[in-house]
Amino acid sequence: MNNYIQENKDRFIDELLQLLRIPSVSADPKFKGDVRQAAEFIAEKLREAGADKVELCETAGNPIVYGEKIIDPALPTVLAYGHYDVQPADPYELWHSPPFEPVIKDEKIYARGACDDKGQVYMHIKAFEMMMRQNELACNVKFMIEGEEEIGSNNLGIFVNQNKEKLQADVIVISDTGIIANDIPSITTGLRGMSYVEVEVTGPSRDLHSGLYGGAVANPINILCQMIAALHDENNHITIPGFYDNVEELSSEERAEMAKAPFSLEEYKKALDLGDVHGEAGYTTNERNSIRPTLDVNGIWGGYIGEGAKTVIASKAFAKISMRLVPNQTSEEITEKFTRHFESLAPPSVKVEVRPHHGGEPVVTPTNSVAYQAASRAFEQTFGKKPIPVRSGGSIPIVAMFKAELGIDSVLMGFGLDSDAIHSPNEHYGVFNFLKGIETIPYFFKYLAEMSK
Amino acid sequence: MNNYIQENKDRFIDELLQLLRIPSVSADPKFKGDVRQAAEFIAEKLREAGADKVELCETAGNPIVYGEKIIDPALPTVLAYGHYDVQPADPYELWHSPPFEPVIKDEKIYARGACDDKGQVYMHIKAFEMMMRQNELACNVKFMIEGEEEIGSNNLGIFVNQNKEKLQADVIVISDTGIIANDIPSITTGLRGMSYVEVEVTGPSRDLHSGLYGGAVANPINILCQMIAALHDENNHITIPGFYDNVEELSSEERAEMAKAPFSLEEYKKALDLGDVHGEAGYTTNERNSIRPTLDVNGIWGGYIGEGAKTVIASKAFAKISMRLVPNQTSEEITEKFTRHFESLAPPSVKVEVRPHHGGEPVVTPTNSVAYQAASRAFEQTFGKKPIPVRSGGSIPIVAMFKAELGIDSVLMGFGLDSDAIHSPNEHYGVFNFLKGIETIPYFFKYLAEMSK
Repeated sequence: MNNYIQENKDRFIDELLQLLRIPSVSADPKFKGDVRQAAEFIAEKLREAGADKVELCETAGNPIVYGEKIIDPALPTVLAYGHYDVQPADPYELWHSPPFEPVIKDEKIYARGACDDKGQVYMHIKAFEMMMRQNELACNVKFMIEGEEEIGSNNLGIFVNQNKEKLQADVIVISDTGIIANDIPSITTGLRGMSYVEVEVTGPSRDLHSGLYGGAVANPINILCQMIAALHDENNHITIPGFYDNVEELSSEERAEMAKAPFSLEEYKKALDLGDVHGEAGYTTNERNSIRPTLDVNGIWGGYIGEGAKTVIASKAFAKISMRLVPNQTSEEITEKFTRHFESLAPPSVKVEVRPHHGGEPVVTPTNSVAYQAASRAFEQTFGKKPIPVRSGGSIPIVAMFKAELGIDSVLMGFGLDSDAIHSPNEHYGVFNFLKGIETIPYFFKYLAEMSK
Repeated sequence: MNNYIQENKDRFIDELLQLLRIPSVSADPKFKGDVRQAAEFIAEKLREAGADKVELCETAGNPIVYGEKIIDPALPTVLAYGHYDVQPADPYELWHSPPFEPVIKDEKIYARGACDDKGQVYMHIKAFEMMMRQNELACNVKFMIEGEEEIGSNNLGIFVNQNKEKLQADVIVISDTGIIANDIPSITTGLRGMSYVEVEVTGPSRDLHSGLYGGAVANPINILCQMIAALHDENNHITIPGFYDNVEELSSEERAEMAKAPFSLEEYKKALDLGDVHGEAGYTTNERNSIRPTLDVNGIWGGYIGEGAKTVIASKAFAKISMRLVPNQTSEEITEKFTRHFESLAPPSVKVEVRPHHGGEPVVTPTNSVAYQAASRAFEQTFGKKPIPVRSGGSIPIVAMFKAELGIDSVLMGFGLDSDAIHSPNEHYGVFNFLKGIETIPYFFKYLAEMSK
C-alpha cells in the first residue's frame, strides 16, 4: 500500500460510510429522494477530487452523474462506469445490523451497497483523487455513474445513445464483479444476460372459501406451482421450446481450462449449509452458474401469508421469474419464448398474464486487448499474482449495450468476493478489497498509457 | 314475519352492526383486545335478552361466552353453538367498503363476519330475546359462543371435555352454514374435515444473488413449486400414498340423489368469471366440493415480493396447505400421510419442515332424528317449502368433537348463501336471511318440544 492510501484510508472509509448511509434503493419509489441524494454525493466527491464538467444528467428516471478530466487528447481515455443505486434491503429482520447504518466488523464494511456497487464505485473516485493529488493521472478519464442499474438501466441506454460523442473513450472500466479470493486475483471475461418477468395467474374472480369451493375451481396458487414446476424437467433442463437453440456450447478444451480454477465443492456446500448442490445434469457447479442459462423464481406470493391459518382459495397468484442467458441468446428472444410457453401451460380454468420487467444481453469480453492486458498487469503488480480470466454468472446488461451503442469494449475490474452477500442480508465489502482496488486502478491507467504508445 | 320482528328489526340490525364493527380476528395477535371486546358484547346481549349464569369462561386463548335459561328440566335442552371470531380481512384493497365499517347495500349487510358467523350467531340471541319477551321459550337453552373457530377451536375442545355436565343437552344447534337459495331452503347434513399445515423449504442458508448462484444451488421456491405440483396427478387426484384409503365412496343411487339439487354449471362459471371449472376427473362440481377430499394451497410466499425486480435466490419458501376430508378420513391420519409424503418429495439439496396447524374431523349428521325433523318442519313453516338435505364442502370440526365428547348430534341450521363471500373480501349477509333465521329458530324450539313429548 502506498503512502497516500496509508495516510488517507480512514478518510476514504469514512466517506464511503457516508455514502452507504443513503438508502438509494431504485426499485422502490419511496426512496426517490435518497436516490437523488446519493447522486449529489457522488457528484460532489468527483468535484472535490478534481473532475471537470461534473453534472447530474437528468433522465426520465434517476440522474446519471457525469464528470471528466481530459489532460491530453493524445492519451487514451478511460470511461469509468458504476452505479450508486442499490438493491432493496429486505428481509430487514435477517440483517445483524441495519442495512443503512454501516458498521465495520472483522475488517469488513457491512451495509446494503457496501460492495454492489457503492464500495467499488468509490474506489474509482478515490483512485482518481490520488492520481490528481500526486500528479500521476496517466490517461484521460470520464465518469458515468448511474442510478438505475438494479432496475434495468433503461434510461442509461437512452442517455448513451444520445451522448455518443461525449462518451467516446478507448475502454470502459467497470468494478461491479469480483475476484476468486483475496489471494487469487481474477478478472471477469464473461457475463450472463437476463430476462426478468412477472407472471400473474387468475382463477376465480374473487377470493373463495376453500371449504365451499375447494376441489371444484382452479386454485391459482396450485396452478402457478404446476406451471413453474413444468419449466424444468427431471434433469433440470429448462423445457421452454427453443430455449437452448442459440446457446454457445463450450468445447471440451474450454471446459477443461475452466475446471482448473480453484474450487472446493465441499467448502461451497458448507459455506451455504447445503445438503447437496442442485442443477442441470451434465454440468459442474462452476459451469452451471456461468456458462449455462438458468431459470429461477425470485419471488412468489398469493393467498393468506399472515400468521395463523386462513382457509381461502386466492383469486390470484404471482411470481417474479428471471432467466440468466449465455452468449448468443438474446433477452428479447427468450422473453418471447418464455411468454409463449408459459401461456401455453395454463389450463382453461385460469387466466395468465406475463409482464416483462427488463432484460440484458450476455457478453464475453476480449482478453487479447491492450486494455485487458493493462488490467492484468495492474492486478499482478498489486496482488503479486497474474489474475485468472473467469466467466461470471451475474449480469451487467450495460456491457453489451456499451459495445453496441459506443463500440467500446469493457474491462471488468471488480474486487468483490462471492461471499460478500450482495443482494442478500448482511452485504459487506472487505476493507482489504476496497483499499486494494484504490491501489490497483492507478496501475491500470499507467500500463494502459504505456502500452498504448 | 311476526309483529315482534317487524317492530324490532331496525334495532336487531343496528345491534348486529355494532358487533360487526369489532375486528375480532382470532388469527392475528394484534386484534387480541378486539376479540375480547366481541366476547363481552355477546355476553351483555345474552344478559339483556334474559339468559342466566352468563359468563366469559377463560381459556388458554380467547374466552368462551356461556349463558343459559333452564325453564323446566322435563323439557328438551338446546345447546346453541356459534363463534364471535372472524377470518382475517385481507386483502383489504379488494373491499368496496372497509371490512369493519359495515354498510347495508341492496338489502345486504357488508362486513367481515356479517355471515360467518356473527350474523348467524346474533339470530340466535335475538330469537331467544323474542321467545323470552313473548313468554314462548319452548325448550331449555344453553349458549356456548367461542372465539377461536377460525383458528381451530383448540381451547373449545378442552373446555367441552372439562364441562360435560354443564353442557348436557339433547341437541346442539349451529348456524354456520347456508341454504341453496332464498327460495330453496336446505339443511346441511354433512361436513368435510380438515388438515391444515404450514410447510417451509430451506435451500441455501442465506439469500443469494441469482446471477452468481443461479443454476448451481436449489432455489427453494422452484423446489416448493415442484413439490406442490407433485401433490396432484394429471387427473387432479391427490398423490399422497394412502390418501384415499378410507374415503367413503357413495353409491350411484346416492350420487343420483345428489345430482337432483338445482345447479347450473354455466351460472356457477359466470358468477366466478371462470373459463372452466377444475377438479378431480370423474366427479361433478357438486361432488368435488362436498363428497370428495381436496388439497389446496391457501397461501404461498418467498423471495422478493415488493415492487420492481430483485435478482435473489431466497433462502426459504413457505406455503399454507389445507386438505378437506370426507367421512372415515381422520385429520391425524391425513396430516401424518401428508407429512411423510411431502418430506419424501424433497431433494437432498433442500431441507423441509411441515408444521401442522389444526385439524377437524368430517361428519355426517342423522336426518332421522327428532331434532332434524323439528328443524325441517321449522324451515318448511317459514320458507313454505321442505328443506333439502345437502352435504357441504366446508368444515365445522367441532361437530365431530361434540359428538365424541358429549355424545350429542348437531343440527346445522344455517341461513347463509354460497354467494355471501365468507372468508373473502366483501363478505355480506342478506337482511332477509338474518330476519328469516330469527323467525325460524323459535319454530325449531316449538316443534322440538312438541315432538319430544
